[in-house]
Amino acid sequence: MSIRKESPDRRSFLKRSSAVLTGAAASALTPAAAAQNLAGEAWERVYGAGFTAYGERSRFEQPVVRHVFRPYGDLAPGSGAALSPIESLEGIITPSSLHNIRSHSGTPDIDPKRHQLILHGLVARPVKLSIESLSRYPMVTRTHFLECSGNSNRALAPQPLQVPAGSLHGNMSCSEWTGIPLRLLLEEAGVLPQAKWLLAEGADSAHMSRSVPMEKALDDALVAIYQNGERLRPEQGYPVRLLLPGWEGNMNVKWLRRLKATAEPMHTKDETSKYTDLLPDGRAMQFTFEMGVKSVITRPSSTMALARGAVYEISGLAWSGAGRIRRVEVSADGGTSWTDAALTGQERPKSFVRFRLPWEWKGTETLLQSRATDEKGQVQPARREWLSQYSPGNTYHNNSIVTWAVGADGSVKHVYA
Amino acid sequence: MSIRKESPDRRSFLKRSSAVLTGAAASALTPAAAAQNLAGEAWERVYGAGFTAYGERSRFEQPVVRHVFRPYGDLAPGSGAALSPIESLEGIITPSSLHNIRSHSGTPDIDPKRHQLILHGLVARPVKLSIESLSRYPMVTRTHFLECSGNSNRALAPQPLQVPAGSLHGNMSCSEWTGIPLRLLLEEAGVLPQAKWLLAEGADSAHMSRSVPMEKALDDALVAIYQNGERLRPEQGYPVRLLLPGWEGNMNVKWLRRLKATAEPMHTKDETSKYTDLLPDGRAMQFTFEMGVKSVITRPSSTMALARGAVYEISGLAWSGAGRIRRVEVSADGGTSWTDAALTGQERPKSFVRFRLPWEWKGTETLLQSRATDEKGQVQPARREWLSQYSPGNTYHNNSIVTWAVGADGSVKHVYA
Repeated sequence: MSIRKESPDRRSFLKRSSAVLTGAAASALTPAAAAQNLAGEAWERVYGAGFTAYGERSRFEQPVVRHVFRPYGDLAPGSGAALSPIESLEGIITPSSLHNIRSHSGTPDIDPKRHQLILHGLVARPVKLSIESLSRYPMVTRTHFLECSGNSNRALAPQPLQVPAGSLHGNMSCSEWTGIPLRLLLEEAGVLPQAKWLLAEGADSAHMSRSVPMEKALDDALVAIYQNGERLRPEQGYPVRLLLPGWEGNMNVKWLRRLKATAEPMHTKDETSKYTDLLPDGRAMQFTFEMGVKSVITRPSSTMALARGAVYEISGLAWSGAGRIRRVEVSADGGTSWTDAALTGQERPKSFVRFRLPWEWKGTETLLQSRATDEKGQVQPARREWLSQYSPGNTYHNNSIVTWAVGADGSVKHVYA
Repeated sequence: MSIRKESPDRRSFLKRSSAVLTGAAASALTPAAAAQNLAGEAWERVYGAGFTAYGERSRFEQPVVRHVFRPYGDLAPGSGAALSPIESLEGIITPSSLHNIRSHSGTPDIDPKRHQLILHGLVARPVKLSIESLSRYPMVTRTHFLECSGNSNRALAPQPLQVPAGSLHGNMSCSEWTGIPLRLLLEEAGVLPQAKWLLAEGADSAHMSRSVPMEKALDDALVAIYQNGERLRPEQGYPVRLLLPGWEGNMNVKWLRRLKATAEPMHTKDETSKYTDLLPDGRAMQFTFEMGVKSVITRPSSTMALARGAVYEISGLAWSGAGRIRRVEVSADGGTSWTDAALTGQERPKSFVRFRLPWEWKGTETLLQSRATDEKGQVQPARREWLSQYSPGNTYHNNSIVTWAVGADGSVKHVYA
């Protein structure tokens, strides 16, 4: 971790109350522009489109799409990942249509009237639950992020890829989830004292399954049926998914069909053949559940271009599987000095937080970084520090600091620093 | 306002920790059901759908749509309102595709590269702003409701309409908005001391326009460009709208093209020929800006049916234009006695709050009501009390208590009480 110190670089960061803050963006209104405004654009002279039952975005926004990676191509078009275009988004909530996806055998087309969730194994009263019956249970609503444990593995390529931020770090998203506390269902089934784990299995054709410690299941786990106000999206587990706030994405089992209380973890294919961390001594570490404290600047970010001498707002996302974000610092000198950013949403544990800091780019080469600290005092590690913990082949749990380099020409590039 | 008193009726409300809470919903897992689960459904035996660039909801959810009202029919297919199906939604955020719409001349198809917002009138430095330049200003993210001042006017029909809750009370929604504090733009333009109002004008062909007190513009007003993480939806003002948190919907001018600082209100057609409140003495009251404290139970609600002797969770929405919701009470005896519901999101001012209360329906006739109180101490009025303030012809600002009647047969009906 770098030493925190004050430096002259802080002068490039502006106070929100600063008069210079906004000076570079607006244009003076010329008489010609005023006349043009008065005349009005073409769309002001025609009657607009009619109402729709279920709306869509503007045709001008259609270039904003997920970054899709299909390692098996057309042979398995739903195996791989679709990353969220975080470089084009703002705020905290990820639009459901742009939520990241990680799937092993595509998205099943589940009839919610037929789907059943069963709860069995080491329980006193095995039960089955339809979606209709789940809908009558007490529910809670909470905002939580989901991050694939393989997120940012593309930032481990030998050379830094010159692609948009979402294509590197967008295997994560944040939604408002509504569902039933899993604890309620477990209490109803009557978990036996020897049950220390819970096997969670999905209804996709891969039967994606993971072992979950009972302690987490009884803590803040949810059986979620709504996402951002409406029923779950198919890619997010429609009609029901497990939600283990702050834990690696694949454990939040989608299309949840079965929860089996067990004495020991089941060592499924999904927790042995993959989702283990390779250590420097050649061993694989199993069961790294919690996602580390992390942040990324989304604007400006790689592949963008800045105008010389212009005022910008640095904007980005921070999150931690351990709880709330306490602090996000931004550096414009490659980590020599740091300035605190303003936070939005920091009252929500295990949720994205939006950080922002107004900044004047003075036309010189600059290294932009962000560094998050969570309420447990954990600090996002430097890239070198993170790399030293693992084998070079490890591709999971990369929460290291991201660096964007602004060139003298205003181009923003992805660099390793 | 009813007298708050404790009553035997409270026994029908259950504690969240109650063992009886969940007993009525799950079924015991029979050997046959376990065998069926083991065999798996059809969708578990086929490879699922591939990734999409921009996702859609399940085909099984497509019956959930906005309630569209087009008073001029095909002559003006975008004039009227489309109400949010709140009876089918949960949580706090309204999905953007199901956000309510109130439009006077349809939705314009605006090119964000051509659209300009000008700021002129009684200012030292008139300016024009493109969407690109607005995107470089400091932004904030906040969750706020929007409610048409005509919401719940269908609950003023001579006889209570037997339609879903959203068809009566869904002319409101709640989103996470991201935008530029209007104060920043006004400071840049240099508002002159004599400017006490701001004319806000939209780029629809109706040039919908309203006069806004400068005090509100300098307080918490936003120039919003993002909604629920992505750019505004076309029906919500793409590419830029005014947001006046807590104030009647139509003042939050969509497709914002012009802000003109003025000494007096402009008395536009949209604040004289409509959006005024008819008083008992025949006069019309102008400029009722703030939306009153209000709540509605969304589940169970009219047109639904309950199973006898079953446990439910009463769930609904509460909000106030004056700030935070402090309390929501629920009655199951037509307002004789009240019990406090649990609240989610009450830390957010001028936002929906989700209230919930577990409840056992014992098979008898029951009148369900909710009553919200805000942080200013304002209490949602009873229907009779509200009606007494206005002429019978008034259709705006109906924030009175809503009553759903559960019949002995489990049917839920809309009644006036």
